[in-house]
Amino acid sequence: MKKIGVLTSGGDSPGMNAAVRAVVRKAIFHGLEVYGIYQGYRGLIDGHIEKLEVGSVGDIIHRGGTILYTARCEEFKTEEGRAKAIKQLEKYGIEGLVVIGGDGSFHGAVKLTELGFPTIGIPGTIDNDIPGTDWTIGFDTALNTVIDAIDKIRDTATSHDRQFIIEVMGRNAGDIALWSGVADGAESILIPEDTSTIDDVVNRIRQGKNRGKEHSIIIVAEGVGSASEVAAAIKEKTDIDTRVTVLGHIQRGGTPSAFDRVLASRLGAKAVELLIEGQQGRMVGIQDNKIVHHDILDVLTKKHEICKDMISLAKELSI
Amino acid sequence: MKKIGVLTSGGDSPGMNAAVRAVVRKAIFHGLEVYGIYQGYRGLIDGHIEKLEVGSVGDIIHRGGTILYTARCEEFKTEEGRAKAIKQLEKYGIEGLVVIGGDGSFHGAVKLTELGFPTIGIPGTIDNDIPGTDWTIGFDTALNTVIDAIDKIRDTATSHDRQFIIEVMGRNAGDIALWSGVADGAESILIPEDTSTIDDVVNRIRQGKNRGKEHSIIIVAEGVGSASEVAAAIKEKTDIDTRVTVLGHIQRGGTPSAFDRVLASRLGAKAVELLIEGQQGRMVGIQDNKIVHHDILDVLTKKHEICKDMISLAKELSI
Amino acid sequence: MKKIGVLTSGGDSPGMNAAVRAVVRKAIFHGLEVYGIYQGYRGLIDGHIEKLEVGSVGDIIHRGGTILYTARCEEFKTEEGRAKAIKQLEKYGIEGLVVIGGDGSFHGAVKLTELGFPTIGIPGTIDNDIPGTDWTIGFDTALNTVIDAIDKIRDTATSHDRQFIIEVMGRNAGDIALWSGVADGAESILIPEDTSTIDDVVNRIRQGKNRGKEHSIIIVAEGVGSASEVAAAIKEKTDIDTRVTVLGHIQRGGTPSAFDRVLASRLGAKAVELLIEGQQGRMVGIQDNKIVHHDILDVLTKKHEICKDMISLAKELSI
Amino acid sequence: MKKIGVLTSGGDSPGMNAAVRAVVRKAIFHGLEVYGIYQGYRGLIDGHIEKLEVGSVGDIIHRGGTILYTARCEEFKTEEGRAKAIKQLEKYGIEGLVVIGGDGSFHGAVKLTELGFPTIGIPGTIDNDIPGTDWTIGFDTALNTVIDAIDKIRDTATSHDRQFIIEVMGRNAGDIALWSGVADGAESILIPEDTSTIDDVVNRIRQGKNRGKEHSIIIVAEGVGSASEVAAAIKEKTDIDTRVTVLGHIQRGGTPSAFDRVLASRLGAKAVELLIEGQQGRMVGIQDNKIVHHDILDVLTKKHEICKDMISLAKELSI
Repeated sequence: MKKIGVLTSGGDSPGMNAAVRAVVRKAIFHGLEVYGIYQGYRGLIDGHIEKLEVGSVGDIIHRGGTILYTARCEEFKTEEGRAKAIKQLEKYGIEGLVVIGGDGSFHGAVKLTELGFPTIGIPGTIDNDIPGTDWTIGFDTALNTVIDAIDKIRDTATSHDRQFIIEVMGRNAGDIALWSGVADGAESILIPEDTSTIDDVVNRIRQGKNRGKEHSIIIVAEGVGSASEVAAAIKEKTDIDTRVTVLGHIQRGGTPSAFDRVLASRLGAKAVELLIEGQQGRMVGIQDNKIVHHDILDVLTKKHEICKDMISLAKELSI
Repeated sequence: MKKIGVLTSGGDSPGMNAAVRAVVRKAIFHGLEVYGIYQGYRGLIDGHIEKLEVGSVGDIIHRGGTILYTARCEEFKTEEGRAKAIKQLEKYGIEGLVVIGGDGSFHGAVKLTELGFPTIGIPGTIDNDIPGTDWTIGFDTALNTVIDAIDKIRDTATSHDRQFIIEVMGRNAGDIALWSGVADGAESILIPEDTSTIDDVVNRIRQGKNRGKEHSIIIVAEGVGSASEVAAAIKEKTDIDTRVTVLGHIQRGGTPSAFDRVLASRLGAKAVELLIEGQQGRMVGIQDNKIVHHDILDVLTKKHEICKDMISLAKELSI
Repeated sequence: MKKIGVLTSGGDSPGMNAAVRAVVRKAIFHGLEVYGIYQGYRGLIDGHIEKLEVGSVGDIIHRGGTILYTARCEEFKTEEGRAKAIKQLEKYGIEGLVVIGGDGSFHGAVKLTELGFPTIGIPGTIDNDIPGTDWTIGFDTALNTVIDAIDKIRDTATSHDRQFIIEVMGRNAGDIALWSGVADGAESILIPEDTSTIDDVVNRIRQGKNRGKEHSIIIVAEGVGSASEVAAAIKEKTDIDTRVTVLGHIQRGGTPSAFDRVLASRLGAKAVELLIEGQQGRMVGIQDNKIVHHDILDVLTKKHEICKDMISLAKELSI
Repeated sequence: MKKIGVLTSGGDSPGMNAAVRAVVRKAIFHGLEVYGIYQGYRGLIDGHIEKLEVGSVGDIIHRGGTILYTARCEEFKTEEGRAKAIKQLEKYGIEGLVVIGGDGSFHGAVKLTELGFPTIGIPGTIDNDIPGTDWTIGFDTALNTVIDAIDKIRDTATSHDRQFIIEVMGRNAGDIALWSGVADGAESILIPEDTSTIDDVVNRIRQGKNRGKEHSIIIVAEGVGSASEVAAAIKEKTDIDTRVTVLGHIQRGGTPSAFDRVLASRLGAKAVELLIEGQQGRMVGIQDNKIVHHDILDVLTKKHEICKDMISLAKELSI
């Protein structure tokens, strides 16, 4: 293997740049050439490809977003699109590819592998919803962004004796909601993986009031429904007024945390090692505090498991 | 004057605690006793009043929210309510009052002054919408919170070549939108004080695209309409997709900035000086970089002026 | 077990309050009474002990430092001192103790266990130097503080083409230096666990200059020597001027990160579970992403291992 | 005027990039061409000059440091050096120059003006020590960095009942020390402009201890002496142990605050307006909340005045 490519795909997440940097530096360290593919699979098809040097990835480890950009690409889902992509890779003499992104991006990586093109996936998404890794790149930063926001909202909640409902990202996975809820001592957390109901939320509010606590923070993962819906349901059942905040896209940006930068660096370096070893169709990850890799197709057919202990912990500590 | 009271009222804003601290410390420095009135005018009526010492306000200068709490109080708008309040003040021997809050709170202060009770207002609101002062306590912190959020969103906007519409607080005043827009290089800013239209916004987006910039940030003050409405209008006119973020209550909380802590300290100290001098019905403020004070009734009858130069500056620099 | 006590000891670390909160809430959840012991072993001897309720630990999960204070206590190292401590515990009817701190604090815990008093240790120190746990409470926050500082210094290093030497905490363990160095892309990292020399540092600087990079960041763990010594050595060998920054105590404070708050919550809860189960002389920790516990005497006789892979990773990525 | 140049010089300060952006955008808005001169006067002599477009300054408003770099340049202090500089300006057809920096940089600007070359200065330094402007670009950000650091140190100071001495930047001006001291409620502040002595500091510590406050924060401007010297003097007089932290270069970097970004934008735009109007040898600034300009030679012969009221305020509020 002499030339490899790297692209970012799907939603951006903080730490993607650190992963790109690691891929580039590690590859150059081992004497490879590295090509950056811009705007994900879109740029792969269009040949938006440039050689990257050590200095190309200088001063990016601490930047949010991705210097390689990312985009949706319907065309890559077609056979013709993928054929074009392979042609571009051949044109540049690229023999292996690192794809940084979430499960959507990995579907593309699987297709390339099926076409015989060595591809390694790196899990980059704030949702932490990828099986085969305990952590995805960006999750830790997103958590810190969320708790910083909730700390701010709590100032107002406390000063006004108000109930706040905060909607966080997480379509299929409640990880952001659960972890930020524990980290912020939220009174209630509503996630797809748990059976807590509006009645439970209401009971918590009442319990709090009974012991003199007039304010509360309720966190809702978007996969469960919108914060407004929860507010309406509470209002209907109890006549308690709540305030709603949807944290939205601030969760996806920002300077990556130390944890995410280190994780991204380790996974980026490992991905290059695998390509050098001749591996393909693998996803790198971290499990039990060790850098691991799995068949990427396996990853896509499994389901991410939330930490169950944390669900009960959250309930016990928010009494 | 031997005993004074202090309360916070209306929406909380970062720096209120620094103002409370300054009132307490300055008063004690001059040999006065100080009483904290909890939950604003509500607590004044109910007699939720406690003596504060030097140590009561230790370790609060950097905290968001207000340790005195704040609340709405319809009863204070009635003559009977105010009579109860005066009785409470008499009961504690309180001879002067400092009210920290926005224009709603100042209406109460005017009423107390009319009843012969010496009251001084301190402008505490993130909106910067109080005449007679160039800056209100909390505005600077809110601005920093907003630009921190927009910096994060810009990561995603840039990575995805997307248009973002961000709604910030400011019902009658576009100050938060205008200042954060200039500070973040927003492509368009919609505020009540300016005549920019959706067409202008659309033109900006197109101008940007013409010179190769595919992403943009559009800031909307809530007084102009919701971000969703703006998004819908743009979609209707141009078929351009935009993403919407409503920053919401995070703007009201958080550790106050250096500027807000210093401003709050200076205004709090000045308020106490005025009471000692025998003044009443005044609002303290900062104008042309000097600590000033005005008749609080005058303040309520005037209108806050936004900095017009900044509006044109914003347009010229976002070409 | 009906009554337990909790104390913090040694250097404070961010997340200690989250651990205290978890101990208190978890214990109350299980029907226990909890007593806070102030100023560590000092307060244990002096009987500076107060009952804690659910509300006593409200609004502290996000605060740095420790609401229970911490102090050095030579007297506890004597038999007489410990006898007094046991008397105090008996006086309050406390049957089990949770000690949050570093290895110094655990020596005390071992002594209490030897005297037959059930004690559980929770590793709270920014240094991450405790065997038996992959992470100590406070390490992640300290890392984020360090990289935030280095990000700022890099602005100046880049703008001025300067070499900066940054001294971080870590007497026996280079974890803070190593992780922050990887997270910030430091050109060189000097830690007790590695054999890199001043010559290696100088070579890195020269390598950088050869490819046009005029600035660099060198991180030094205090255990290796002071940043000033390193600067002097570089100056002597090469006549290259460097700037020195000693990060100092900012590394110990600040709002805990999400990771530290969650870790502290989990470890605090586990410590209470162990006491309820009748365990003693154990330290709780996290290993391979699971909550574990070990004989605390074992912990003290082992040596913390730094992640060796990270040392080579750091070198490969900073080419 | 058709072509102007812009350079940054002296120590970098947060907001310089926002000023560069404003100069470039404003100039292009008015149909001028703009040239970036890299590494200050050094690059002016060496002809390190490049044309800047609207996009050249995209995505920099929020970045610390300066994209134009800065450097010392002894040669520019000689007639020969300046003659070379003028030649370079003529070569590029540059007819006016904007210099962003502190008083050292302005000496160069005066020299260019004396040689008949229209030059406008913009005050960019964290020290806030430039006469003719109430605020310099970077001061507000530096203050926020300092108070963030002190907030962290206070966690440890409080938890351990310790005295901390914190050294901040400011050779001739105590502004950073005074403002951050007020903003953080420091117990003592030592600045060149005030007569407070070590005895006063010691008295404050004792006063605090008398009312049960065991910790304190003492801020020292570097112009008064080093924190270590203050610590030694206190130790000698009282046997009180103190901890020392030198904040150092973190004060110069970081994302600029909203205030600094707006100030830099306004001053940058004004500088271009002055050049278009045919003005020269002026420094732009903000006074009494209005954008102003002064003869730059006047500025250099005056002395910056610290806000005296703040000195007494600091003492009154830290009782």
